[in-house]
Amino acid sequence: MQSLLDNLTKPKGSLGTLEAVALKLAAVQNRVPPSAEKRGVWVFAGDHGVVAEGVSLYPQEVTPQMFANIAAGGAAINVLSRHCGFDVQLVDAGMTADVEHADAVALKAGSGTRSMLREEAMTADQLRQCLANGRALAKAAADDGFQLVAVGDMGIGNTTAAAALVVAAGLDLDAVVDRGTGIDDETLRHKRSVIADAVEKHGPYESPEHIMRCVGGLELATMTGFILGLKGAGIGCLIDGFPVTAAAYMAWQIDPSCGAYLFAGHLSKVKGHRAILSAMGLEPLVSLDMRLGEGTGAVIGGFLVYLSTKIASEMATFDSADVSRAEDDETDY
Amino acid sequence: MQSLLDNLTKPKGSLGTLEAVALKLAAVQNRVPPSAEKRGVWVFAGDHGVVAEGVSLYPQEVTPQMFANIAAGGAAINVLSRHCGFDVQLVDAGMTADVEHADAVALKAGSGTRSMLREEAMTADQLRQCLANGRALAKAAADDGFQLVAVGDMGIGNTTAAAALVVAAGLDLDAVVDRGTGIDDETLRHKRSVIADAVEKHGPYESPEHIMRCVGGLELATMTGFILGLKGAGIGCLIDGFPVTAAAYMAWQIDPSCGAYLFAGHLSKVKGHRAILSAMGLEPLVSLDMRLGEGTGAVIGGFLVYLSTKIASEMATFDSADVSRAEDDETDY
Repeated sequence: MQSLLDNLTKPKGSLGTLEAVALKLAAVQNRVPPSAEKRGVWVFAGDHGVVAEGVSLYPQEVTPQMFANIAAGGAAINVLSRHCGFDVQLVDAGMTADVEHADAVALKAGSGTRSMLREEAMTADQLRQCLANGRALAKAAADDGFQLVAVGDMGIGNTTAAAALVVAAGLDLDAVVDRGTGIDDETLRHKRSVIADAVEKHGPYESPEHIMRCVGGLELATMTGFILGLKGAGIGCLIDGFPVTAAAYMAWQIDPSCGAYLFAGHLSKVKGHRAILSAMGLEPLVSLDMRLGEGTGAVIGGFLVYLSTKIASEMATFDSADVSRAEDDETDY
Repeated sequence: MQSLLDNLTKPKGSLGTLEAVALKLAAVQNRVPPSAEKRGVWVFAGDHGVVAEGVSLYPQEVTPQMFANIAAGGAAINVLSRHCGFDVQLVDAGMTADVEHADAVALKAGSGTRSMLREEAMTADQLRQCLANGRALAKAAADDGFQLVAVGDMGIGNTTAAAALVVAAGLDLDAVVDRGTGIDDETLRHKRSVIADAVEKHGPYESPEHIMRCVGGLELATMTGFILGLKGAGIGCLIDGFPVTAAAYMAWQIDPSCGAYLFAGHLSKVKGHRAILSAMGLEPLVSLDMRLGEGTGAVIGGFLVYLSTKIASEMATFDSADVSRAEDDETDY
């Protein structure tokens, strides 16, 4: 694959990250050049009992409302997916409400989590169900021929659960919780103390699964199962912002080899995002000050991965185009 | 336009740069929402007499070879433009060789420049011709209904001319000339001294036009004319890496109001690029360690601008989708 890239009509390495990404995907797919013709984004929705503790200024009813909006094609992820060439796969992984829609899948391991501040967020059975559901979706994606997938999230309160997951896994609270935009000092102090108290209440933790059960989320655990289930499938996987990256971090804690097929779609504006990506050794493809979720940053980064495959497959070579090489062809033109 | 963005089903401002870009393009086009359906990239080719001084390790024959490669559709800019939806417009603005191609335009103000180290790179007539050619192309782009254009470059030695332009205009030599990849210490010292000597030989400078005549390039000056010619046309313009940005800097020195319709497609790996962008107050859309030119970074950034117009025109609003707003809707979900 490196020799293919070096034979294209450009100075060696001059497409930078696009070349690195094509190399990584070729290794994942064991295919030269790699291909990303069939792309999809899986958006996992779920509700969080911790919302009852006042950590979000959005009412919980927004989860099913936005779920319906995505199902109807009106959300940001629909627009971006349409133009970046990703099919949207919408999964109810544990909303409180039931929203039926022809284009959505219900794989509910429960009706929201319980408040992590009061009890374990989910039962061991629910966690097993989430992981199994995610793995089943990954297998279906492989069976359907997807070559590049992206992961998105929708769930009021899921940034709180995501922060609790990574703090329980050892990241520093102050590094991963900030005010966001519009949250005042008091709300910030409250959110931070909810996370710190919940993490302390259930610890010490024996395993990533133990953490996910106590302070996680149904949709987050389903994502973790989905990412783990992609192992060996020859599919590249774009992760999105803070919640999805926290779910990926749990997968990475369980099996670090998943880092080989993970791509960081973007760097979100949420403070702790960089810290989790760095812990997994991932560099974000773009940094656009976004903090929306739904997989919006994942499909934008995913489009760049797609472009990298077209570079590898459609450019002329020095020989075919009869272009002279440099004396030292690592230099610029 | 701001109220349109704030009514879309997402937390206020949560699409970050995409929202800022849509706002800027709406102001350029005086149109809400903005539109970028018709997109094109103009690639300007030219030769540089300074290549005789040994500043490039590529032979000059690569300019017409790569010109032919672009005309035939095999270069990186062709592949990226195809998938980002940009028409490629190829312009011979002053190559030494003549390469005729049905899909290329010859607007030659000369057959390469003279070595800036020996004499003025071009005559006053040639400079006038370049600026007029560029303005004519901008007018044609507007007449053809282009809504978003990108500028690319192809020319062995043009990074040397570009560096000389911005150094003559006052930027620090050490800030804009570095080794690139694969240039050894001796070649770097030589390139730096060629630029410093040429800039000193012709100074002091009375005007941007004086600088462009003494140390510029035919294709760079044609780009400058193109950018200036877009004023008032309601077209957004993506700039690319170091050479194109230097040409844009000359346009900005002549008329700073062009900054209102310029978008920085990407941050190149070439050291001096950030300094020129910062001088014009432009933030790059992506940073992918690229250093290829041809407009490759401009069309990638341009695709993000296109996405921003689709966000503005295709997303559901809170009312249409029946989604509840936050108590304070600047917060994350």
